[in-house]
Amino acid sequence: MRITKLVGERLKEAPSDAQVKSHILLIRAGFIKQVGNGIYTLLPPAQRISKKIQQIIREEMDALDGQEVLFPVVMPKEMWEKSGRYYSIGEEMVRFKDRANRDMLLGMTHEEAAVSTCQNIVKSYDQLPCMVYQIQTKFRDEARPRAGLIRVKEFTMKDAYSFHTSDEDLENYYNKVYEGYNKIFSRVGMKNFISVKSDTGMMGGKYAHEFMLLTDIGEDSIVICDHCGYKANMEVATSTQSQTNFDDAPMAEVYTGKAKSIDEVCAFLNISPKQTIKAVCYCIVGDNKHTVIAFTRGDREINEAKLKRLLGKDIAVKDLDESSLVKGNIGCVGLENDDFIIVYDSSLKNACGMVTGANKEDYHITGLNINRDTNAKEFFDITKVSEGESCSICGKPLSIKRGIEIGNIFQLGTKYTKSMGMTITMPDGSQMYPIMGCYGIGVGRCIASIAEECSDAKGLVWPMSVAPWHIYLCPLRNDDENVNQTAEELYTSLSKKYEVLYDDRKCSAGIKLTDSELMGIPVRVVISPRSLAANQAEITLRESGEKIMTDLSTLEQTLDKIIKEASCKN
Amino acid sequence: MRITKLVGERLKEAPSDAQVKSHILLIRAGFIKQVGNGIYTLLPPAQRISKKIQQIIREEMDALDGQEVLFPVVMPKEMWEKSGRYYSIGEEMVRFKDRANRDMLLGMTHEEAAVSTCQNIVKSYDQLPCMVYQIQTKFRDEARPRAGLIRVKEFTMKDAYSFHTSDEDLENYYNKVYEGYNKIFSRVGMKNFISVKSDTGMMGGKYAHEFMLLTDIGEDSIVICDHCGYKANMEVATSTQSQTNFDDAPMAEVYTGKAKSIDEVCAFLNISPKQTIKAVCYCIVGDNKHTVIAFTRGDREINEAKLKRLLGKDIAVKDLDESSLVKGNIGCVGLENDDFIIVYDSSLKNACGMVTGANKEDYHITGLNINRDTNAKEFFDITKVSEGESCSICGKPLSIKRGIEIGNIFQLGTKYTKSMGMTITMPDGSQMYPIMGCYGIGVGRCIASIAEECSDAKGLVWPMSVAPWHIYLCPLRNDDENVNQTAEELYTSLSKKYEVLYDDRKCSAGIKLTDSELMGIPVRVVISPRSLAANQAEITLRESGEKIMTDLSTLEQTLDKIIKEASCKN
Repeated sequence: MRITKLVGERLKEAPSDAQVKSHILLIRAGFIKQVGNGIYTLLPPAQRISKKIQQIIREEMDALDGQEVLFPVVMPKEMWEKSGRYYSIGEEMVRFKDRANRDMLLGMTHEEAAVSTCQNIVKSYDQLPCMVYQIQTKFRDEARPRAGLIRVKEFTMKDAYSFHTSDEDLENYYNKVYEGYNKIFSRVGMKNFISVKSDTGMMGGKYAHEFMLLTDIGEDSIVICDHCGYKANMEVATSTQSQTNFDDAPMAEVYTGKAKSIDEVCAFLNISPKQTIKAVCYCIVGDNKHTVIAFTRGDREINEAKLKRLLGKDIAVKDLDESSLVKGNIGCVGLENDDFIIVYDSSLKNACGMVTGANKEDYHITGLNINRDTNAKEFFDITKVSEGESCSICGKPLSIKRGIEIGNIFQLGTKYTKSMGMTITMPDGSQMYPIMGCYGIGVGRCIASIAEECSDAKGLVWPMSVAPWHIYLCPLRNDDENVNQTAEELYTSLSKKYEVLYDDRKCSAGIKLTDSELMGIPVRVVISPRSLAANQAEITLRESGEKIMTDLSTLEQTLDKIIKEASCKN
Repeated sequence: MRITKLVGERLKEAPSDAQVKSHILLIRAGFIKQVGNGIYTLLPPAQRISKKIQQIIREEMDALDGQEVLFPVVMPKEMWEKSGRYYSIGEEMVRFKDRANRDMLLGMTHEEAAVSTCQNIVKSYDQLPCMVYQIQTKFRDEARPRAGLIRVKEFTMKDAYSFHTSDEDLENYYNKVYEGYNKIFSRVGMKNFISVKSDTGMMGGKYAHEFMLLTDIGEDSIVICDHCGYKANMEVATSTQSQTNFDDAPMAEVYTGKAKSIDEVCAFLNISPKQTIKAVCYCIVGDNKHTVIAFTRGDREINEAKLKRLLGKDIAVKDLDESSLVKGNIGCVGLENDDFIIVYDSSLKNACGMVTGANKEDYHITGLNINRDTNAKEFFDITKVSEGESCSICGKPLSIKRGIEIGNIFQLGTKYTKSMGMTITMPDGSQMYPIMGCYGIGVGRCIASIAEECSDAKGLVWPMSVAPWHIYLCPLRNDDENVNQTAEELYTSLSKKYEVLYDDRKCSAGIKLTDSELMGIPVRVVISPRSLAANQAEITLRESGEKIMTDLSTLEQTLDKIIKEASCKN
């Protein structure tokens, strides 16, 4: 590819709306161009990377006996009514009417399509396990697209669906996919990625893992035990909580005036947040009657994902202005009411000597003994893990890191096969709902994640396995006829074996070298009047910065070695 | 691939709604499955074919210096308002509002995206010519999807867009793409395809070709001169029309009673349709005032595409029930009215002695002399060519064939660059709107077209270049341990080199052989207790039916030769 013809412009300045490194660099290097909010065109270099990532994914999916199919982007409502998700998924799913006034939707995931496709085709136990996958465009109407390709509305995704006759068979296959995912992320050149237990969210099912690239710009919090290797998404992470152990005391109502927040109450009473009880109120989506009141210790934060799972309902923080509850003075004594669903966090188990709201303006209660003074019978883990808490497996302190979700795998169970009525015949003639797994990787997010991890102050640093080109051929002073002619010859000869981006511009050395670094092509070959005088070329490796002077006669041989070594690394 | 695990079921019966051969066979062989009206899932065999076709397209596009990109499926309204097509394209374009109430649409073509992408990136004359292309899902809300993959709502399409500094440069590039298209269709194994001049339709521009696979089930009529090679889509085809040459006579009003249609009037007056004048009335879309009245000779048919182009407006057949026009008695005398746009077909030039409606119930006029009795000043070609008419180039008789459009290429001119304000800087510093070409191929329709052409009474006959598998390995009586073991060994060894579909079912020879023919895998290798007794395998070529007995020891060598030869054919 001659750079003069390349559709894509290198920019000196970062776009004003880009804060995240991968976003800035992918724009500045001319790899992507924004079309709308969360919608991008992949320019030629990014599309080249995308195809290489897709090819690696295909190879690993095929190695798992995956069969590639193509489901439609646009699907009829009926299919999604059966699974119930036509109604349970919110505004992020695009719905429209076709010209015949039929309700249609844009697929944001394809469990329904997979079941509908395999239904009546996969009919017998001996056809299982089987897995179908596709690499296809998806559209999710994200409320807050951000950070370039990291969170977008439209994206290319590999999604796979497997069918099984038993939980053990799913478990066994799931573990193979888990290994396959590790191979994929290694092969595309990611280094600092991990897998964590995760929430199953709108997918349903009971068991899931996310693959996370650890990076400070990640949207997800990950709880990690460096000692025993425990790793979980904050949404499901647990810890062994320190006991709440204050002296028991008689219950008393005390004046606290305008002190409402935990901090204010603590300052007023001169106690630590650990001695207080925090109340957080939620409404249930689609239920106007009930209010969920979650109580936890004042130093802890409610984990809404855990609370949702516990309730089996979708919740949202409640606006208390129009309720009978006294904002800032809600407490767990005398709150019984059929409209309230009260949930106690495990941190409150056996707690005594605590401060809680008095359910009236200006007053709190001190000396609360949770067993003595409330109806609390069960305690649930509904809070977020904090840095330094003890690992629930080995007891050592936990740390919290940030990550980008680069892939996920789910044990779905029979949620979809049951609701859509897909059955298979077992050896004894009985019918069963096959047990499903599903497995996703966002290709665009992989590009951004690699860019995030593989980049430095000068620009992008593509791993050889996914680099848009292997070699950046960079003649300096190509107004010099000798340089120009040698460069043209090298372009022709090297292109026979490698993907070469040829900087055929007649511009300054500074611009060329800067652009080569910005674009992150792994190997740069520079020739100049001076190097040619010695019959030499200068090879620079983008990642290490290492420079190698080589005779023109051995250039190809040297490149062979470098590129082969770099390819083996992934 | 083991057929026991293959997701896809072979059916004995054709689906009740399928009439067209490719549709029937693709369903029966388990290649596609319908999801909704005009929406299909590609099952694994069809997706394998699709990927091979895509790869061939990519190679030929890359050979034309094409740069692969990925435009979004979902685009914001604004981009399409600039080109004017947000309003000019009808219901076939899906429009919806996103969660922020912004107007969005599903791309059915990407001229706007291509211009918007290249704008501000391709800025200088020396970057041209350049071409970007993508292979992407498109959605067109077709009113009448039909024939399986031939006319669908959702499809995978390769669309390419080129930019040029002059008409000559576009012409030159267009001709190269034309050659590239010929290569693509040859390489995917099509035989009976041609290119024809075509209408530019909603694309705009002035010059276009369609590539057509000739087949009786085609939706398009193609006018062909076997003598000089003239070929055109009916929408733009011309012919040299026979002169209308009846004796001049005085004009007279005659009673024709209930005779309304051309046939009825001819029968009543005992004349031929050639002596009558037919009137066809249209309304203009978005214009309630005017009525278009098209007059032609009674034996000819109005070509709406030509009429649309002449008027530069979209038209629809008018319902005359609520108009002042006398249905069945419309004539060209005394019809002047500011609300009428009257168009005369070339067949009426200098016509005399003609019969036309009298514009009142029960009467026609005879002896009409078009020059003497009407205000007709200009005559236009607004009719369809009929079989046997004279070629306007060489005068020999034309024939009419049916075809499926498998690809199209357009010289767009500056319609999009001008309306969207994309300019480039020329060497003298001036700005110009680059001149565009665009080039489409529907991948799914290619699959169906190949299936239509490459099939016989037994089933599909895939060309080697796009076949889902090269070899159908078919052990008969594989309950025999020797057969089973040999088949397993062959599957392992042949899979190292070729794509093998292994019929590992324990079912009758009849079912296996029938399925292998239905699925159309080019080479079948049969082993059985009998063949193994002679240490042999039987190779059958799907296309020719030729059978070759070969020793197991030379099987691979023989297959090498067969597959190599078959691959060279395309």
